[in-house]
Amino acid sequence: MRTIHVIGIGAGDPDQLTLQAVKAMRGTDVFFVLDKGEVKSDLVQLRHDLLEAHIPEGTYRLVEARDPERDRSAGGAAYSPAVGDWRSARADIYERLIGEELGEDETGAFLVWGDPALYDSTLGILQEVLGRGAVAFEYDVVPGVSSVSALVARHRTGLNRVARPVQITTGRRLAEGFPEGVDDVVVMLDAHQTFRQYVDQDIDIYWGAYIGTPDEILASGPIAEAAPRIERLRAEARERKGWIMDTYLLRRHARGDGG
Amino acid sequence: MRTIHVIGIGAGDPDQLTLQAVKAMRGTDVFFVLDKGEVKSDLVQLRHDLLEAHIPEGTYRLVEARDPERDRSAGGAAYSPAVGDWRSARADIYERLIGEELGEDETGAFLVWGDPALYDSTLGILQEVLGRGAVAFEYDVVPGVSSVSALVARHRTGLNRVARPVQITTGRRLAEGFPEGVDDVVVMLDAHQTFRQYVDQDIDIYWGAYIGTPDEILASGPIAEAAPRIERLRAEARERKGWIMDTYLLRRHARGDGG
Ligand SMILES: C[S@@+](CC[C@H](N)C(=O)[O-])C[C@H]1O[C@@H](n2cnc3c(N)ncnc32)[C@H](O)[C@@H]1O
Ligand SMILES: C[S@@+](CC[C@H](N)C(=O)[O-])C[C@H]1O[C@@H](n2cnc3c(N)ncnc32)[C@H](O)[C@@H]1O
Repeated sequence: MRTIHVIGIGAGDPDQLTLQAVKAMRGTDVFFVLDKGEVKSDLVQLRHDLLEAHIPEGTYRLVEARDPERDRSAGGAAYSPAVGDWRSARADIYERLIGEELGEDETGAFLVWGDPALYDSTLGILQEVLGRGAVAFEYDVVPGVSSVSALVARHRTGLNRVARPVQITTGRRLAEGFPEGVDDVVVMLDAHQTFRQYVDQDIDIYWGAYIGTPDEILASGPIAEAAPRIERLRAEARERKGWIMDTYLLRRHARGDGG
Repeated sequence: MRTIHVIGIGAGDPDQLTLQAVKAMRGTDVFFVLDKGEVKSDLVQLRHDLLEAHIPEGTYRLVEARDPERDRSAGGAAYSPAVGDWRSARADIYERLIGEELGEDETGAFLVWGDPALYDSTLGILQEVLGRGAVAFEYDVVPGVSSVSALVARHRTGLNRVARPVQITTGRRLAEGFPEGVDDVVVMLDAHQTFRQYVDQDIDIYWGAYIGTPDEILASGPIAEAAPRIERLRAEARERKGWIMDTYLLRRHARGDGG
């Protein structure tokens, strides 16, 4: 039976790899690396670096494929209705990779950015491939440090306040309004700096871009004061590198919070 | 200047330690281990095992202290109004440990269960100690794999569904009602199996206890069918070990979800 590991590799710092991830990688025959296009090649490079650092050369094969283009015309980096088609197109590729590149008794692996559980399609695609029934395999998941955990660690703060909930959401959702019932909200996949919508509220923002990498930028403070600063930092960084990945926590001062 | 690392060690599997955590541990002179009472001594044991496995003996000191008792009379394992007092009592202990046990140029570390960002008081206590001004130190945070990431990895599912938000909350909050605006909810610190309140809803539950340890138990399914099974497993395990730590994801079938 073919086996596949879905391995979380952390969100930028190569040392965020867990010992469990290293062990799973050492037991892997074939690594599948999907390139999401030239702008993200730094992200592909990290995977190569991790393999070089931890796995003896000659003990594995590396299979690279080009991810199908996603139709982003419907709205920036946030997920669009085109996600369904895109997922099917990816399932075709994964099915072919597993069927053709992985021997019957071999182990393959996908190295997933951050934690495979957060806004990542790999698990959904593998389930779709299995459901089609053309190739059979076992699979397991190695959890990773997400960009959410990395963000708040760098800001030395918690995700939730004592006994309170936290929500993780997307820029697109935040554009529809501040989530109900929570005062701590982490926002991912925001191409539009949606935090600007809330500058007149009593909110602190903890923002980070390229967290864990040599390009890391952090900024925080009361949103009215910090938002223009973050806009500037973000525009400069985006210009310089050609792409950006950023995440932020919005922490609203609740009534009776004393602040 | 004294330095303190707050190090996430994963939620039960010793291999969930990151390379970054191992490096931070190797640079530590004094480890502070707070014992929360005999029922949780397995959790203290894991910290000893990690030190033994990764740090050469004789290169560090281990300082153990007894955590002050928390007043649980106000309601089970969920946080109670006594949390404030309890935090002050802990701050007294941390202040003393840092002031008396850590030399002026030494590095200390707290090994925190899971990810220090989730329902953990260490960062808040260190901030309180700093605010008092009696001892000075620098500190940083090493993120860890949380029990939330570990739970969904073991169930091989994601935390959020495509483009949708996820909330992380407590059993006590869930008792007040299903959170608004989300259909995916992770529940921690639930001493009362609050999921039973929702057995008549169209919800799938993914439950895990002692995740990542040799005692790990997993169960999942439509809540009406799975809830009694989980109740039984939980009661048996609790009886056998004398204590339990469990977490679960509730995934509500949304209108228009197709199922
Ligand atoms: C497709 S999601 C994948 C998230 C990933 N699975 C994780 O656990 O972090 C991509 C989003 O994650 C966030 N992100 C990932 N890595 C990041 C980093 N190093 N710094 C800042 N944000 C990051 C950004 O919000 C980005 O839009
Ligand atoms: C005080 S909180 C600490 C959480 C921790 N910082 C983390 O990141 O997982 C303790 C709660 O975490 C959850 N938990 C921690 N470790 C767990 C494990 N190995 N299995 C199941 N639940 C766990 C339980 O819900 C427990 O009530």
